[in-house]
Amino acid sequence: MAPSRITPICLLVYLCFLGVFVKSVLSAKARHFKWEVDYMIGAPDCLEHVVMAINGQFPSPTIKARAGDTVVVHLTNKLHTEGVVIHWHGIRQLGTPWADGTASISQCAINPGETFVYRFKVDKAGTYFYHGHYGMQRSAGLYGLLIVDVEEGKKEPFQYDGEFNLLLSDWWHKGVHDQEVDLSSNPFRWIGEPESLLINGRGQYNCSLAAAHDSKASGCTFRGNEACAPNILHVKPNKTYRLRVASTTSLASLNLAIGNHKMLMVEADGNYLQPFSVNDFDIYSGETYSVLFRTDQRPTDNYWISVGVRGRQPRTPQGLAIVHYQTTTASKLPTLPPPQTPLWNDYARSKSFSNKIRALSGSPKPPINHHRRIFLLNTQNRINGYTKWAINNVSLSLPPTPYLGSIKHRLTNAFDQKSPPDTFLSTYDIMKPPPNPNSTYGSGVYMLKFNTTIDVILQNANALNPNVSEIHPWHLHGHDFWVLGYGEGMFSKRDEDKLNLKNPPLRNTVVIFPYGWTALRFVTDNPGVWAFHCHIEPHLHMGMGVVFAEGFILLGRYQTRLFLVA
Amino acid sequence: MAPSRITPICLLVYLCFLGVFVKSVLSAKARHFKWEVDYMIGAPDCLEHVVMAINGQFPSPTIKARAGDTVVVHLTNKLHTEGVVIHWHGIRQLGTPWADGTASISQCAINPGETFVYRFKVDKAGTYFYHGHYGMQRSAGLYGLLIVDVEEGKKEPFQYDGEFNLLLSDWWHKGVHDQEVDLSSNPFRWIGEPESLLINGRGQYNCSLAAAHDSKASGCTFRGNEACAPNILHVKPNKTYRLRVASTTSLASLNLAIGNHKMLMVEADGNYLQPFSVNDFDIYSGETYSVLFRTDQRPTDNYWISVGVRGRQPRTPQGLAIVHYQTTTASKLPTLPPPQTPLWNDYARSKSFSNKIRALSGSPKPPINHHRRIFLLNTQNRINGYTKWAINNVSLSLPPTPYLGSIKHRLTNAFDQKSPPDTFLSTYDIMKPPPNPNSTYGSGVYMLKFNTTIDVILQNANALNPNVSEIHPWHLHGHDFWVLGYGEGMFSKRDEDKLNLKNPPLRNTVVIFPYGWTALRFVTDNPGVWAFHCHIEPHLHMGMGVVFAEGFILLGRYQTRLFLVA
Repeated sequence: MAPSRITPICLLVYLCFLGVFVKSVLSAKARHFKWEVDYMIGAPDCLEHVVMAINGQFPSPTIKARAGDTVVVHLTNKLHTEGVVIHWHGIRQLGTPWADGTASISQCAINPGETFVYRFKVDKAGTYFYHGHYGMQRSAGLYGLLIVDVEEGKKEPFQYDGEFNLLLSDWWHKGVHDQEVDLSSNPFRWIGEPESLLINGRGQYNCSLAAAHDSKASGCTFRGNEACAPNILHVKPNKTYRLRVASTTSLASLNLAIGNHKMLMVEADGNYLQPFSVNDFDIYSGETYSVLFRTDQRPTDNYWISVGVRGRQPRTPQGLAIVHYQTTTASKLPTLPPPQTPLWNDYARSKSFSNKIRALSGSPKPPINHHRRIFLLNTQNRINGYTKWAINNVSLSLPPTPYLGSIKHRLTNAFDQKSPPDTFLSTYDIMKPPPNPNSTYGSGVYMLKFNTTIDVILQNANALNPNVSEIHPWHLHGHDFWVLGYGEGMFSKRDEDKLNLKNPPLRNTVVIFPYGWTALRFVTDNPGVWAFHCHIEPHLHMGMGVVFAEGFILLGRYQTRLFLVA
Repeated sequence: MAPSRITPICLLVYLCFLGVFVKSVLSAKARHFKWEVDYMIGAPDCLEHVVMAINGQFPSPTIKARAGDTVVVHLTNKLHTEGVVIHWHGIRQLGTPWADGTASISQCAINPGETFVYRFKVDKAGTYFYHGHYGMQRSAGLYGLLIVDVEEGKKEPFQYDGEFNLLLSDWWHKGVHDQEVDLSSNPFRWIGEPESLLINGRGQYNCSLAAAHDSKASGCTFRGNEACAPNILHVKPNKTYRLRVASTTSLASLNLAIGNHKMLMVEADGNYLQPFSVNDFDIYSGETYSVLFRTDQRPTDNYWISVGVRGRQPRTPQGLAIVHYQTTTASKLPTLPPPQTPLWNDYARSKSFSNKIRALSGSPKPPINHHRRIFLLNTQNRINGYTKWAINNVSLSLPPTPYLGSIKHRLTNAFDQKSPPDTFLSTYDIMKPPPNPNSTYGSGVYMLKFNTTIDVILQNANALNPNVSEIHPWHLHGHDFWVLGYGEGMFSKRDEDKLNLKNPPLRNTVVIFPYGWTALRFVTDNPGVWAFHCHIEPHLHMGMGVVFAEGFILLGRYQTRLFLVA
C-alpha cells in the first residue's frame, strides 16, 4: 500500500487516535499561581500567633490539578530578612530537579523581594502537599495541600461520592526562630511536645468541644466562623466519601479515627494500595493517605474525627473535627466520645498496620536485584557539646551553595568532595547509647549512577540516653521507593529472604521503628540532587539526612548538558 | 648638585622625613576580625530572650582602632534563614561605599553560611558604633562599639586619666520578628514602649537596685557576675574620665546623668565640640558623645548613672549603672537616689541643649552657599490601609537589588527611575493631620552631583492623630553634615538668616523636633549611594528614609569605572 493511500477504516482508526491525542493534550493544563509568602497574625489554636501564610492564607492555598498538568507557581518572598523555598512533597520532579524547592540542594533560597518561578509537571494522580524547606519554616506554618486528580476521562480504581481533605500539623506557642536557637544551643534545649494538633490549621488550645467526655478538659464554644473553630465535614447518609489525609507535622506521629466508622485504605503517597479496612490508622510526618468511609451510621448523630499522638509520650490533646450528617444540625455535638488514640508505645500495633500496606495488584514491581546497597545508621551524637543526629557518624550540614549548581558547574570547594560511607561497623551495638558519641559535620553526597537499583537499609539505634530509640519517618525527594520490609534489631543476612519483592507499596516516606530497620529500593531514573531525610523538622535541623546526587557524570570541558546517563 | 650627591644636612632632613613617613605607615594598622553572627540565648534585662550576637557576645565585641587604621571584618552569617549586614555607623567610608553595610543600598544581604569581608579605613578619631541594617536586626541586639583613638603620637584637644564606654539601647520582650509583623499589619499594631533600657546590654526588668529611692520599684540583688548585673565604673578620686556614650536605641530618646557630677561635652559623632558643661544631656538614637567628668565628689560614696526616656511619654524604668569610687566597696549602693530624668515633653529644655552644641573652634566650616536645597517633609500616612511614614509623600520601599550595583550596571528596572520630589506644597499645614493621608511606596533616589553643596531642610509635621508630632533623629550615611540650625513651625525665608554658618557642629545624626525644622548642609565629596533616614528602627521599617546617589554620571558604553566626577 502506497503511503498516500489510506483506507476508510484506517482513516477512522487514525482519526480516533488523533482524537485521543488531541483530547489528552487539550485536557493537560498549565495551572498558574501568583503567590506571596509573608508572616501574618493568626490564631491556629485560638491563641494569637505569627504564622507563615501565602496570599494571607493559613494553611496556604490548596492546589487542585489533574495528572499531566503543569503547575506554575510564581513565588514572591515578602518576608523581611528571611529567604524562602517551597518543596512539592511527593512530586517526583521528573526532569525538573531545579523545581524541587530544597534550599542548599536544588536552589538558593529566594531572597526577600525576589520572585522564583516553580514549573513542574504533576504526572501522577494522588494526595500531595507542599511546604517550606528552609530552616524550620514548615513548623512556622508554611504548608498547603496539592491534590492531583486523575486525567480527565480516566477513573480511580475505587469509587466515591464526595471527598474531603484533612491537613494535619502540630503547633507550638514558642516561635520557630526561638525553637531553632534552642535546638542549636549548648546545652541542648529540646522543643518539647506541641501545645496543639491542628486539622486544616485549626486547633483548640486549653479547651475541648468534647469536654463532656473528658473530665480533665474545659469546654469550648464556637459559632463556627472562628479561624480556630473545628472543621466540619458535611456528609449525606449512605454515601462513600474519600478522605485525603496528609501529615505535615513537625514532630508528632499521629493516629486518626472516625467515631463508629470503618475506613478503607486505598492510597498512600500518591500510589494505590491493595484496599484494607481499618478502625484507625497511623500517619507519620510526610505521609499522605486516602481512605474511603461509608456514612452508614445513625444519621441523627454527628461523629468525631480524632487525631492523637503516637510514638512519643503524648502531652498534647487530641485534634478534633466533626463528621456532620446533614440529616441533623451541624451544631449538635456527637453523643459518642471522640475515638481514643491507641497507646502511644504499642509499637506492635503500629508495625502490624505498616505491614498491612501493600501495593494494589498490578502496580509496578521492584527489580529483583539491587546494584548497590547503602546502610544508613541513625544515631544521636554530640559535636563539640552540641546535640546532633548523624547518619553513619556524619551529621548533615548543608552548604550555602546548592548542590545542583555546584555539581553542574563542578565546583570542588562548595561541599565535602568525599562521599559519606555506605555502611557502618558491623559490630555496632544498636541497643546501647553510642560508644563514641562524637560525630562530625559533613556535606558530602552519595553519587548514584544513572539507571541502577539502589537499596537503602535504614538502621535505627539507641539515642544518647539509655533505653531510648525514636521513630523517624524518612522522606525521599525525586522518587517513590518500594518499601521492602521492616524488621527488629540489626539488619542481617537472614533478613534478606524476608524482603517483600512481590507487592511492596510505593511510597515517598517510610517510618523506621525503634531499634529496628526498614529496607527500601528505588531505581535511579531521575537525574538530580535529592534529599533523603527524617521528616521530623527538628531532627533534620539537627543533621538527620543525606543527599543523593543521581545520574551525573563528569562532562570534561563540555558542560553544556546538565545530565548524562552513566 | 649632582643627584647622587647629598650633603650631610640634606641627608639628615631626608632621613627625618623618611622616619616620619615610615612611622606613620607603621602605626597605621590593618585590624582583622573574624566574626560569626548568630542568635543566642541571653538575658539582657535578666529575663531570658534570644539575642543576636557576634562570636557569642552580646553586645557584640568592641572594636578598638586608631585613626588611619584599616578595619577588616570577615563576617560569616550563621543564622538559619536570615540574611545579615553590618553598618559602621559614623564611618564615612571615603572611597569604599560598598563597605557601608546597608542591605538593598550598598550590598546584598549576606546569606546564611556566606562570608562577606568589610574593609574600610577609620580615618577620624571618635566614638562610633556598628549595627545590623537589615530588617530590624539592630533591635534584635546586633550592635557593638567602634572606638577610634587618635593616631599614635597625636593628642586629643582635651585630657583625661581614663575612659569608659556606655552603649545605650532599649529592649522589648516581644521578639523582633513578631514586632516586624505587627508593624506591617493592617490594622496597624504599634510596638509600644520598651520594657527595659540597657546600658552595655544590661538592664533589670521588674526590679531596681535603686528601689530604696523608689517606692514603686521592687529590689534586686546581684552578686555582680550576672549577665544583667548593672555596669560598674571603677574610678579613682580626683581624676578626669572620658565617658564615651553611644545610643543605638530602637525607639527611645534618652537623657543621661551622673549623680552629683557635672559633665563637659567634648565630642559628638566623631567631631570635637566647643566644650560646655552640663548636669545631664540628651542623646538620640544614632548619636554618640564623649563627656569628661571629674571624680571630685565624696569618695566614700558611690553614684548612680541614670538613663531615662525623653520625647515620648515614658513607660520604661530608668537604666542604671554605678560610678564606684575605689576608696569604698563596689557593693555599697549610692546613698543618693539616681538622677531624675527631665520631664519627657520639656522640649524647650531639649532644644536649649541641642542649640548649645557648637563645633570646636578651628573645625571645618561649611561653604557659605548651597547648590541645591532639598526640603524633606515627614508625614505619617496610610497606604491601602497600612500605616507608613513618608517623605514628601513617598514611603521608602527598598528594592531587592542594591542601588550601588544597580546604578553601576545601569539597571533601569531595579528601582524607580523617577527621583522623588525636592520639595512639597508650600501650603501644606504641618500643624494638622495630613489632609490627604494616602501616600505611595517608592524606591527612587535623589541623584546628587559630585562636589556640590547640598542643604537639607527636614520639616516635621503632625502625624495621623491630631496634636501628635514626634521626635525623629535623622542619620546620614557616608558623610558628616553641618547642623545649621533648628526652628519652630514651617521653615521660611526669614529663617534663612538664623542659619549658623559660623560654628555649626559636624554630626552624622540630628534630631528634628515636633512641629519644627532642622537645617543641615554637606558637600558631595564621597561618591556612593547613601541612606538618609530616621534612626528609629520601626520608623525606618515603615518607610521613613530617602536614598542619595552621589557622584555618579552615566558612562556611556564604558562602564569600567564606578564613579566619575561631574
